[in-house]
Amino acid sequence: MASNSFGTLFRITTWGESHGKAIGVVIDGCPAGLEVSEEDIQIELARRSPGKSIYTSPRKEEDKAEILSGVFDGKTTGAPISIVIFNKDFDSSKYEPIKHLLRPGHASYTYQEKYGLFDHRGGGRASARETACRVAAGAIAKKLLKHFGIEVVAFLSQVEKEIAEVEISNLSQIKESMLKSSIFCPDAKAEIAIMEKIASVKEEGDSLGGIVVFTSNLPLGLGDPIYEKLEAKLGAAMLSIPASKGFEIGSGFSSVFMKGSCHNDIFRHEEGRVVTKTNHAGGILAGISTGMPLIGRVVFKPTSSIKKPQETLNVNKEKELLTLPEGSRHDPCVAVRAVPVVEAMAALVLADAYLLNRNAKL
Amino acid sequence: MASNSFGTLFRITTWGESHGKAIGVVIDGCPAGLEVSEEDIQIELARRSPGKSIYTSPRKEEDKAEILSGVFDGKTTGAPISIVIFNKDFDSSKYEPIKHLLRPGHASYTYQEKYGLFDHRGGGRASARETACRVAAGAIAKKLLKHFGIEVVAFLSQVEKEIAEVEISNLSQIKESMLKSSIFCPDAKAEIAIMEKIASVKEEGDSLGGIVVFTSNLPLGLGDPIYEKLEAKLGAAMLSIPASKGFEIGSGFSSVFMKGSCHNDIFRHEEGRVVTKTNHAGGILAGISTGMPLIGRVVFKPTSSIKKPQETLNVNKEKELLTLPEGSRHDPCVAVRAVPVVEAMAALVLADAYLLNRNAKL
Amino acid sequence: MASNSFGTLFRITTWGESHGKAIGVVIDGCPAGLEVSEEDIQIELARRSPGKSIYTSPRKEEDKAEILSGVFDGKTTGAPISIVIFNKDFDSSKYEPIKHLLRPGHASYTYQEKYGLFDHRGGGRASARETACRVAAGAIAKKLLKHFGIEVVAFLSQVEKEIAEVEISNLSQIKESMLKSSIFCPDAKAEIAIMEKIASVKEEGDSLGGIVVFTSNLPLGLGDPIYEKLEAKLGAAMLSIPASKGFEIGSGFSSVFMKGSCHNDIFRHEEGRVVTKTNHAGGILAGISTGMPLIGRVVFKPTSSIKKPQETLNVNKEKELLTLPEGSRHDPCVAVRAVPVVEAMAALVLADAYLLNRNAKL
Amino acid sequence: MASNSFGTLFRITTWGESHGKAIGVVIDGCPAGLEVSEEDIQIELARRSPGKSIYTSPRKEEDKAEILSGVFDGKTTGAPISIVIFNKDFDSSKYEPIKHLLRPGHASYTYQEKYGLFDHRGGGRASARETACRVAAGAIAKKLLKHFGIEVVAFLSQVEKEIAEVEISNLSQIKESMLKSSIFCPDAKAEIAIMEKIASVKEEGDSLGGIVVFTSNLPLGLGDPIYEKLEAKLGAAMLSIPASKGFEIGSGFSSVFMKGSCHNDIFRHEEGRVVTKTNHAGGILAGISTGMPLIGRVVFKPTSSIKKPQETLNVNKEKELLTLPEGSRHDPCVAVRAVPVVEAMAALVLADAYLLNRNAKL
Repeated sequence: MASNSFGTLFRITTWGESHGKAIGVVIDGCPAGLEVSEEDIQIELARRSPGKSIYTSPRKEEDKAEILSGVFDGKTTGAPISIVIFNKDFDSSKYEPIKHLLRPGHASYTYQEKYGLFDHRGGGRASARETACRVAAGAIAKKLLKHFGIEVVAFLSQVEKEIAEVEISNLSQIKESMLKSSIFCPDAKAEIAIMEKIASVKEEGDSLGGIVVFTSNLPLGLGDPIYEKLEAKLGAAMLSIPASKGFEIGSGFSSVFMKGSCHNDIFRHEEGRVVTKTNHAGGILAGISTGMPLIGRVVFKPTSSIKKPQETLNVNKEKELLTLPEGSRHDPCVAVRAVPVVEAMAALVLADAYLLNRNAKL
Repeated sequence: MASNSFGTLFRITTWGESHGKAIGVVIDGCPAGLEVSEEDIQIELARRSPGKSIYTSPRKEEDKAEILSGVFDGKTTGAPISIVIFNKDFDSSKYEPIKHLLRPGHASYTYQEKYGLFDHRGGGRASARETACRVAAGAIAKKLLKHFGIEVVAFLSQVEKEIAEVEISNLSQIKESMLKSSIFCPDAKAEIAIMEKIASVKEEGDSLGGIVVFTSNLPLGLGDPIYEKLEAKLGAAMLSIPASKGFEIGSGFSSVFMKGSCHNDIFRHEEGRVVTKTNHAGGILAGISTGMPLIGRVVFKPTSSIKKPQETLNVNKEKELLTLPEGSRHDPCVAVRAVPVVEAMAALVLADAYLLNRNAKL
Repeated sequence: MASNSFGTLFRITTWGESHGKAIGVVIDGCPAGLEVSEEDIQIELARRSPGKSIYTSPRKEEDKAEILSGVFDGKTTGAPISIVIFNKDFDSSKYEPIKHLLRPGHASYTYQEKYGLFDHRGGGRASARETACRVAAGAIAKKLLKHFGIEVVAFLSQVEKEIAEVEISNLSQIKESMLKSSIFCPDAKAEIAIMEKIASVKEEGDSLGGIVVFTSNLPLGLGDPIYEKLEAKLGAAMLSIPASKGFEIGSGFSSVFMKGSCHNDIFRHEEGRVVTKTNHAGGILAGISTGMPLIGRVVFKPTSSIKKPQETLNVNKEKELLTLPEGSRHDPCVAVRAVPVVEAMAALVLADAYLLNRNAKL
Repeated sequence: MASNSFGTLFRITTWGESHGKAIGVVIDGCPAGLEVSEEDIQIELARRSPGKSIYTSPRKEEDKAEILSGVFDGKTTGAPISIVIFNKDFDSSKYEPIKHLLRPGHASYTYQEKYGLFDHRGGGRASARETACRVAAGAIAKKLLKHFGIEVVAFLSQVEKEIAEVEISNLSQIKESMLKSSIFCPDAKAEIAIMEKIASVKEEGDSLGGIVVFTSNLPLGLGDPIYEKLEAKLGAAMLSIPASKGFEIGSGFSSVFMKGSCHNDIFRHEEGRVVTKTNHAGGILAGISTGMPLIGRVVFKPTSSIKKPQETLNVNKEKELLTLPEGSRHDPCVAVRAVPVVEAMAALVLADAYLLNRNAKL
């Protein structure tokens, strides 16, 4: 419990259920004097909003973020920033016929058992809708990072065997291409292939998993030793996103096939700064950023809500067939909509790391 | 900073440098009344201790843990448990010739830049020696879990293409086989193949990566929603271990190749309890344990300290060749020694989750 | 920063400025299954609301609390409870003429210097209005405590030399009398004397300080040793209330005039339980509750906003006279309105202590 | 639980029992590059050490602090600083005859009930001996503050009606006089009177309470709003010290007798800086330091261990007489030995506030 907050010095607390009155986030610890507007947040929310294309769920959420506190005359005041998004899309009646069923891959079973009750309306607190608050908070974190010269970008990297090819050190190029793509995939070739796959699986009433990659030009020295290593905090951030099943930094799981003489990134002195020839480290050594591009990868399972009927149990533990109600709306590939969420979570971790770093030495 | 603590209610703080006077851990929040002895800790420490075989580094650390507080008449008192391990193996002189060199894959560069100084003696705080404290604390966490009927076990699962085949639901079998193996690998066939690979790479003066898997019979309902999901905490725990590069839960990265109709674990009612036909979830849904076996995987990069000479920079940013001093002792495959550390970290997360869970509902 | 949260397991985060759009609180960690309604909160808010009598400020705030999340079918779900109170009373124009002046005893100077800006409209974040959120959260904490059989009550105890005489062990009697009093004073004689004093000082355009006392029938064993002693947490809670200048537990500052043989509370065995003959301890020994009535006292300075003109500086550091604008509304004795806030803060500390206590022993 | 840590960025964790093997503290979050030696700590420990005079308990503890980690070549490294003090004075046998008795004013009853067991040897964890660790950590905090130009000093201010007269703004004068006094009282006249009182009460086998005052020249802007107000953190710190019963800042409880027109500190512009004519605020407005001297007062109850026989209960809840064993050593006035502890706790709060303040604005 008390599990709805994230961060140490730049700290967010989110609240709200999918089909409740509203959802929201309180950001505590943003330094005073940062220019922030509702527009900044709206732009980010628009990106994750469903209904954007057939590749995401066709809901019309039209999320509208309102800043209720912490900003005065267009600038942060140092007081907590409260952002609220009122829920408009409210009809939960269509879920009535299946509310007695355990939904495979869903929160319903574990929530029911842990709390003794479950808000079945659209997933309640466990709904991916909660991630809109992360994106809203991430918009502020990104503004703060930008003030310090730091950019962060995430993109859809892989679905099945289709992999986006990108030049990771070219962050602005990636960002530009990613923003143009309706599935946040910066490589046009992979984009087309993935879009075809998604369209086809949607047709089948099924769903697909995917991998999201993020990168940042963060400077040398962010992150802390031992238990608050930058990769540990990024890992916790990414694995807190609904449907994520894994996280890796730099060479990640492919390290199992490498030898030390190959994996070690050789130091070079180039243009007045220390760089490494390769970047298997993914921009982090011993929990602290090296100044090389940060590279993290997050995998998302295929959306658990699918049109295909599924065998399951009802609350009396009897076998029953689950068929989602006509008109249910679900992303055929949740990894697509996860892209701005990954970007937001990375920004939250990095903003916090930046503030924490100020007391490293005298 | 203040980054040397881990956990919420069952909380540890570690301290100490590799070649300093001592290392230690303070455990705060262990309930009173648990039987605990130095022997309990010693057994666990013996497992991770180097010098056990050629597969780990041939140092003779002979770590001896002393409980300095928190235990009275053989039982915990509710007061903090302080454990200290004095360092005996002290000669740092052989590192003098290379102390001006950046060591690829090591903490030296980032620590030096972040803190303005670096304790070069054996890696100082960044040394894997710090993990002995995690293992000591994990011994207490495991005793607490056992009191609640929970077991946790980790084992070496993969090195290069050699993969241990195990029946994950048979936890006691895995534990037994793993404890017999000098590389903590419960599958005899894989064990032999991996031992050969390690012997061969050691010969070359090089090193190998590896994957460690952990599992637990934890009950339904542990873990919390949103930012303190069980997988998020496990992820942070695992990625805080030196040399780890990635973490996945259940189906993990292979989810990218699966469809929802396959990935969703179908609920079944068997022998009076709800189980799932498959366990792609890895024992966690929406951050909360399902009662199915917990399955996590952690990848470790190949040891960065290798005998082979490596190109690098000195502190003046000039190119120089790094050759580790004769007699330096390093594990050819750090994943082997990481096994008890992974087990300890998992135990720490689960003990904390167990205590936190007591206030879920009225 | 990140200073707007309070509590460990039962944790609140408040936000909002006096003259902003809204104020609110998020309660994280309330166990699922507690019956909670907006009515519960409204009753508590009504008590602290100004305009109730001449003894408090004559504003008509008509605060209306809305629960936006965390409650489903009349019960808490374990998800964060978000409560919002929209601000209705908005005209800040009358403060324009004095916005360039440092206000003695106010937040304006320190906030301006710390954050580089100050939301002058009605005190912004530093306004006592923030305490409405504490009272709203306290309403939930009190319901939780009641579920466990614990009551907590606060009352106005002293203004100048007028002191309310009460039988501290008779908690329900105190509560009843206190609720009947427009100044929350349970002793009719002191009530009249204090009301006269307040009326008179209001006439003068001046203000008065006061002491608020709280008590609770909390059971034996709540609270933790060393840094999280119950009195330490209560002290932090009380000293976080605007205008409070001191806190004491049990015998408090009068201990300086006592000898050990008198101060020590002698243990007695009465009606099957251990009690003490006196209660100088105020219900706490070594940070842990004894089962005797909890007794804490909080002192509040006289309201700093007064009608009388005051010498001060303007932002250019020049001497100027501060005269509050006609129609400014301020409590002549802030201690009166602090009573429900003290009660709320005590409830928040005790609810948290109750949840924390569940893991004291096996 | 997990209640043995204090602070946010400059964070300490203490451990150890009075008659256990050792006591110690881990300081996490001290910036790298601070010059620190065991001598620095030893000087502070010597001050609080008993046996110094008849005014404190005549034990010969001869505490010797050892730094086990976090300092390299005489400077902090950013790694946790572990300090250990081994216990030498060990014979607990004389407490055997009274171990079955509840000791009035002591931790024994509440600890026994909360944890199901109690380490009766010299008070175990609840012993004032734990405060040696606070003093050791405070020595480091004071060095850090000094680096930033901040001094903090505490002194014995009052016992019964004897009150030390000091010029609070003259911090160095206070410090000098206080250090010369065997009871840490900077006013020679009050010192003599108090020493007489203590000698006389000791003769009677009884004890006295006392008030300790602390002050600091801290700069403008330290502290945070709402729940982390500087006075709230100081209050928690002071009320966590064994035997403390109350804390007040500035005018404190005497505020109840003041009017607003008198209490408000008038701003003045003097020698290029903003000061106030009076300092009823005690150096803090709205939780943030004003740049005027910080003034806090802490009251300590009379020592609960007294030679005079006391009526009490044994563990079977039967009446029995408690007579402390011959040779028991107890301070006749615990406030004397509390002086360096108050100073240490104030330093810990201020060091943390200093580090936290660095992110207030852009």
